[in-house]
Amino acid sequence: MTDMEPMNTPDDGNATQPNPVRIALQSVLDASRAHDGGEVATYIPELAREDPEQLGVAIASMRGAVHAVGDSDAEFTIQSISKPFVFALALESRGLTDVRRHVGVEPSGEPFNAISVDEDSGRPFNPMINVGAIVTTSLAPGDTADEKFAHLRAGLNAFAGHELALDEAVYESESLTGDRNRALAYLAKSAGTLASLADVATDTYFRQCALWVTARDLAVMAATLATGGVNPLTGVRVVSENVARWTTAVMTGCGMYDASGEWLLQVGLPAKSGVGGGIVALQPEGFGIGTFSPRLDARGNSVRGVAMLEDLSQRHGLHMLGLRGTKLSPVGKVIAEGPGGTDTRAHLRGDLRFGGVEEVMARLRPEMESDGCVTLDFTDVTRVARPARQLMQWASDAAGETDTGQPKLVLHDPEGVLTS
Amino acid sequence: MTDMEPMNTPDDGNATQPNPVRIALQSVLDASRAHDGGEVATYIPELAREDPEQLGVAIASMRGAVHAVGDSDAEFTIQSISKPFVFALALESRGLTDVRRHVGVEPSGEPFNAISVDEDSGRPFNPMINVGAIVTTSLAPGDTADEKFAHLRAGLNAFAGHELALDEAVYESESLTGDRNRALAYLAKSAGTLASLADVATDTYFRQCALWVTARDLAVMAATLATGGVNPLTGVRVVSENVARWTTAVMTGCGMYDASGEWLLQVGLPAKSGVGGGIVALQPEGFGIGTFSPRLDARGNSVRGVAMLEDLSQRHGLHMLGLRGTKLSPVGKVIAEGPGGTDTRAHLRGDLRFGGVEEVMARLRPEMESDGCVTLDFTDVTRVARPARQLMQWASDAAGETDTGQPKLVLHDPEGVLTS
Amino acid sequence: MTDMEPMNTPDDGNATQPNPVRIALQSVLDASRAHDGGEVATYIPELAREDPEQLGVAIASMRGAVHAVGDSDAEFTIQSISKPFVFALALESRGLTDVRRHVGVEPSGEPFNAISVDEDSGRPFNPMINVGAIVTTSLAPGDTADEKFAHLRAGLNAFAGHELALDEAVYESESLTGDRNRALAYLAKSAGTLASLADVATDTYFRQCALWVTARDLAVMAATLATGGVNPLTGVRVVSENVARWTTAVMTGCGMYDASGEWLLQVGLPAKSGVGGGIVALQPEGFGIGTFSPRLDARGNSVRGVAMLEDLSQRHGLHMLGLRGTKLSPVGKVIAEGPGGTDTRAHLRGDLRFGGVEEVMARLRPEMESDGCVTLDFTDVTRVARPARQLMQWASDAAGETDTGQPKLVLHDPEGVLTS
Amino acid sequence: MTDMEPMNTPDDGNATQPNPVRIALQSVLDASRAHDGGEVATYIPELAREDPEQLGVAIASMRGAVHAVGDSDAEFTIQSISKPFVFALALESRGLTDVRRHVGVEPSGEPFNAISVDEDSGRPFNPMINVGAIVTTSLAPGDTADEKFAHLRAGLNAFAGHELALDEAVYESESLTGDRNRALAYLAKSAGTLASLADVATDTYFRQCALWVTARDLAVMAATLATGGVNPLTGVRVVSENVARWTTAVMTGCGMYDASGEWLLQVGLPAKSGVGGGIVALQPEGFGIGTFSPRLDARGNSVRGVAMLEDLSQRHGLHMLGLRGTKLSPVGKVIAEGPGGTDTRAHLRGDLRFGGVEEVMARLRPEMESDGCVTLDFTDVTRVARPARQLMQWASDAAGETDTGQPKLVLHDPEGVLTS
Repeated sequence: MTDMEPMNTPDDGNATQPNPVRIALQSVLDASRAHDGGEVATYIPELAREDPEQLGVAIASMRGAVHAVGDSDAEFTIQSISKPFVFALALESRGLTDVRRHVGVEPSGEPFNAISVDEDSGRPFNPMINVGAIVTTSLAPGDTADEKFAHLRAGLNAFAGHELALDEAVYESESLTGDRNRALAYLAKSAGTLASLADVATDTYFRQCALWVTARDLAVMAATLATGGVNPLTGVRVVSENVARWTTAVMTGCGMYDASGEWLLQVGLPAKSGVGGGIVALQPEGFGIGTFSPRLDARGNSVRGVAMLEDLSQRHGLHMLGLRGTKLSPVGKVIAEGPGGTDTRAHLRGDLRFGGVEEVMARLRPEMESDGCVTLDFTDVTRVARPARQLMQWASDAAGETDTGQPKLVLHDPEGVLTS
Repeated sequence: MTDMEPMNTPDDGNATQPNPVRIALQSVLDASRAHDGGEVATYIPELAREDPEQLGVAIASMRGAVHAVGDSDAEFTIQSISKPFVFALALESRGLTDVRRHVGVEPSGEPFNAISVDEDSGRPFNPMINVGAIVTTSLAPGDTADEKFAHLRAGLNAFAGHELALDEAVYESESLTGDRNRALAYLAKSAGTLASLADVATDTYFRQCALWVTARDLAVMAATLATGGVNPLTGVRVVSENVARWTTAVMTGCGMYDASGEWLLQVGLPAKSGVGGGIVALQPEGFGIGTFSPRLDARGNSVRGVAMLEDLSQRHGLHMLGLRGTKLSPVGKVIAEGPGGTDTRAHLRGDLRFGGVEEVMARLRPEMESDGCVTLDFTDVTRVARPARQLMQWASDAAGETDTGQPKLVLHDPEGVLTS
Repeated sequence: MTDMEPMNTPDDGNATQPNPVRIALQSVLDASRAHDGGEVATYIPELAREDPEQLGVAIASMRGAVHAVGDSDAEFTIQSISKPFVFALALESRGLTDVRRHVGVEPSGEPFNAISVDEDSGRPFNPMINVGAIVTTSLAPGDTADEKFAHLRAGLNAFAGHELALDEAVYESESLTGDRNRALAYLAKSAGTLASLADVATDTYFRQCALWVTARDLAVMAATLATGGVNPLTGVRVVSENVARWTTAVMTGCGMYDASGEWLLQVGLPAKSGVGGGIVALQPEGFGIGTFSPRLDARGNSVRGVAMLEDLSQRHGLHMLGLRGTKLSPVGKVIAEGPGGTDTRAHLRGDLRFGGVEEVMARLRPEMESDGCVTLDFTDVTRVARPARQLMQWASDAAGETDTGQPKLVLHDPEGVLTS
Repeated sequence: MTDMEPMNTPDDGNATQPNPVRIALQSVLDASRAHDGGEVATYIPELAREDPEQLGVAIASMRGAVHAVGDSDAEFTIQSISKPFVFALALESRGLTDVRRHVGVEPSGEPFNAISVDEDSGRPFNPMINVGAIVTTSLAPGDTADEKFAHLRAGLNAFAGHELALDEAVYESESLTGDRNRALAYLAKSAGTLASLADVATDTYFRQCALWVTARDLAVMAATLATGGVNPLTGVRVVSENVARWTTAVMTGCGMYDASGEWLLQVGLPAKSGVGGGIVALQPEGFGIGTFSPRLDARGNSVRGVAMLEDLSQRHGLHMLGLRGTKLSPVGKVIAEGPGGTDTRAHLRGDLRFGGVEEVMARLRPEMESDGCVTLDFTDVTRVARPARQLMQWASDAAGETDTGQPKLVLHDPEGVLTS
């Protein structure tokens, strides 16, 4: 069961009609061309041959609409962007407790290929650095690399909403030059945290990194986390809501390696980059973003991808910790009613969370202290966050009855926002 | 200028009326008594004498209402909880660029007293570990410890909304046993990142850590960050909205030392703890929380404070990355109107951000592709996030005119949510 | 060509005659039984089955005499004691410059299995820790593990003076549990310092560590370094004098892992230990020592082996930096001779080095300043260190002639100690 | 009581007569001018003003003769070269056990100013890096910097044989720029290993580093260690023989910071360098060397000082682990004597240590197995190392008597080399 219906409408890829989101994307894409620094990755020949001028960005909404501009359909290898999704798949198949026995969730302040393994527990610091990602990969079901990769590929396909192709040449090159990753796998193995043979883990890892994706794919994969685990294009639940949140939390803390703190300060969107030139980012309960530009900075992050995401965040207020400006009170019109006008009807509105419930009750304290009934009308409320409903119920229970034996606080909820 | 009016009403401290928030706080406070592990800090005698059973929790809302239960008015020393607020004061007086020349923002995965200084730049990794906090303290205006402390104390008072008293005995004990902090100060000094004499920085730091606060104070201080820098009790702007966001970002990434990733996974509220037994936490644009319980775990975090915050987050959905459940579409009733019913009026509702604007335009694509005018009615919209207003305007501009020369997309905004 | 003739006499293994060296060995062996701490290695079952009470010690002299007591003929696996000898073989086949491109010679203050690789150069800190030893092993001629092992085994055989057997069971167990060593090999490979495939290096390494030796073998191997590279039993030169000195230097600085400084302070004999229970040590230009006792301390060094070597060093003044007490002047009788007694004949004696030549010339300054000839009689001198001969020649050249045209300083050297 | 008499003769400073040691020194000094790299230290202005072309080298013998060439009487500040001597003074006043509770003896593979403190014990790794040297300094008797410095200065004067002057300007500059050293002192203080207030330790340390020395002084100071603790110029015992050996051992392992292993490989003389441009080195039981040339390499070692010492070691065979070439047997003429020629008289010669005794007994085994007496004639033996005398005695005791009741093995020692 899923929380929402996919749109089942074609996205606007061929739409000729102007759209404000596409206008926004085109604007940040154009602006990013001013950043001409960075170099394409050269550690394997396949990456070195990439056209450095390729540039694309896409956004996928919670309802499955995809807005894409530039080279959003150009294919490149997913590389490290696979890490959060494979972590999510491990959480889904093993559960949080078991996964955390094998890998931590702490930022390490270290580069992607650091030997960040806790001395006492033998656990890699987190699943976003290579050693942690290899451990995560090893947790996939199956004994062989074929079995494990089949599982992971199916999961990644589900995140993307279609079959992802394997770049055999990249896979072979990665395997040829992958000795440091083999070292990390054997370290984890000797520390007791790898869940397979070292060769099986690295071979699977090299394959998962060599899958082809597009900026559009990344947007959809990220949107699947944003929705809480349901692919908004296909309507298929890929991972549970808890898994999506845990994954997003680890991306928030560790997604950009030793620039994670900087990213949280400036951009504030959970994200993950890859040396193939892609970056994935999302706004939880908002949308997913994918970018593609092969030129990398010294830390291995796409220069123009970073620029586009910074720009989007700053110009459109996407920072997860940013304020969104003055809000009208959740309490709209308050009307005296009933015989003698001693009762009260308060029209609530907007999106209520914990703080909103608090605000409603604070605003209506005088009415609650009077003798009459108070009716809260939820007709225009778009949502009551599930955990906040408990508060509303406590308020109602605690209010008790009026002197005339009527319920003191009545909840009028014709659209079922308190129960759906 | 501030974004909101303080309530100017007494908080519910003496209220006898049941209140759902107080019910929630009492519930997590009671539950936390089951956690009887941990020890009070003993490195100075003043802390060792604390009654380990003290227990309090308070929440301060954006409008300045404070809900408090248990020993929320018991005084204890602020200790490391001063760090984010002093960082905020440094940002306010120096600006982000200058502050970042002295201290980084990256999590280090290390304990509070680690020597986490970047070898190349000489900068402490972040302002939440001791060495970074001492550098932050050194950035306060003034040459002497008296001058610097006067500035910081005034700022901390403004965050709390009243005068905070100095515990002279704790200050003297901290100073007597503070050799590791002196070492860190001299390290920063020799690396060129300390902005004062080492003794001035440590003396100021020992004083700022010895200020008395209560759980109630912490809730108000956190709420001042949650509002974007305005103390909701006093209405005074303490720091700018940018500074509040930057501070919250650093708390998110680094606030709980080497358990920051774990905290982000499980609790998801920007927070900071102190060895005095306090923890401060906040939901941006939501509320501030303060807890107090002197027994500490091995990392120096209050055992019951952690338990209460985990409980609050999980039971009431406060995790910053958590989903809040199904939301009604921001597009409510859509009515055909005008001559021949070819025009459309769409009643929007709720709280619109970037994704909401996208959703509105996606929902109304058929109407936009028809011949008539489309009027978006914002009467019931509680807020349009400021950065999203640009999108709305772009949509309107791009829509152009109908064949009859009328504006295709009309924004009807009687309450001014697009402009206020 | 070698510097000395082996004795070609049976050693005293079966000698019934009391011998002071055997008395000394028996004494320290008996005393070592008081040390009953430590545990046999258990990381593989073959080691765990060793009888912990086995105890032996042997000394091999520069002339090839071997004095052995206790279980000196009990076989055990050489383990890490192979490291200095394999390093010597690499120096012999590759030269110092090439070897040092692959591995450093600095102590690291870290345990045997640490990841002590220099970040800039990628070189392991030294060849006595595992990662450095694996790199050293990879430098052996040949492409396959069979070829490399054949080369190394032949070299180790030459050091020991006979064929060393391979313990197949230990080899297989080491290989099964050797993931950390594989990690180290891949790290070195990825850093560009390993000279073979990682698997080839580790497989060779596991085999070289599984060769059987006895305390007697270790004494002979060490004596081969003490002589400057010639096996004193067989008379075969195994490595050059330079290689022997370089190897001994690295054993001095790094042979006992993170206890190397302690060892240099207390024992002062270049040494190397192995988890099989053996320790090898030597006095350069003196003799070699081998000990065997399987119980290991926390650092992996044989408890009783350490005790015996400490005892030997302290009771018999073997510390390389220790003083040996008052020495007679190298100038014995000084006799006036010649017509009128104006010439001088000085009888030199003992073993002259740089300081001895200085002392001779200082003692004879009055005679050198007189008018007559001075004859230095080397008849009773046992040795003039080769590099000191240059000084003697300079003294003679600089002295010039007497007023009567005679050489001022005459070197009378009937046994050729200045030229042999 | 001392082991040797000082010469009480003026050294050769003014000697016009050619001397082979001076020829050797002049030769390496001249050759070192080819090394024109490096820079004088600039971290304080006083050092930056040094004439970079100054160049001197001196050797002091065990008998107190000093050979000096170049700028051997130019004064410069002792800096880190004080470290081994202050360590020796701490050992002398506190004993090894107590000193080792405060500081370790392990090389750390790290630069001079590293924070090399063992996490568990809080002890600095060794007394040759700054943090360890500051701890060593703190161990001096007295509570104030004045008292401690008075003690240390008296000790350093005794090592040098005269009063060393304090460069007040350097002391003040070091103090002004010494924040990293203050940091290290406070770290040690907080770890419980500093034996004084932090300020007292650093102030004393800055003063001890600012004492003026010359290359000649350094040679004498080193010679005082080489003799086993007696200043060969003054005849005064400064430290015990054990302390001299322990100090030399630590110089061997840790004296050249992170180039200690390299130094041991290439030079093989215990040594210590300072940023003032000096290097001190010694051959135990040989002589002391001092060099001076202000230009430093990247590690802070004098470029030409290193070159001169490498040259001296290699050209004159001074490496502590080097071989000295073929030696005549310690057994010279062996003569049949006694009635019927059944007895044997063996003329021993040279310098006998443990191995020499072994060799004597091995050579004479046939005679020992015959019926007659064997007399060992020690007349021409220059020394029997004290610990080897025990062996000689055991041999004699074990030999027992002949059938005729005579002692089997007679030790004829007219000069008392077995007992003096």
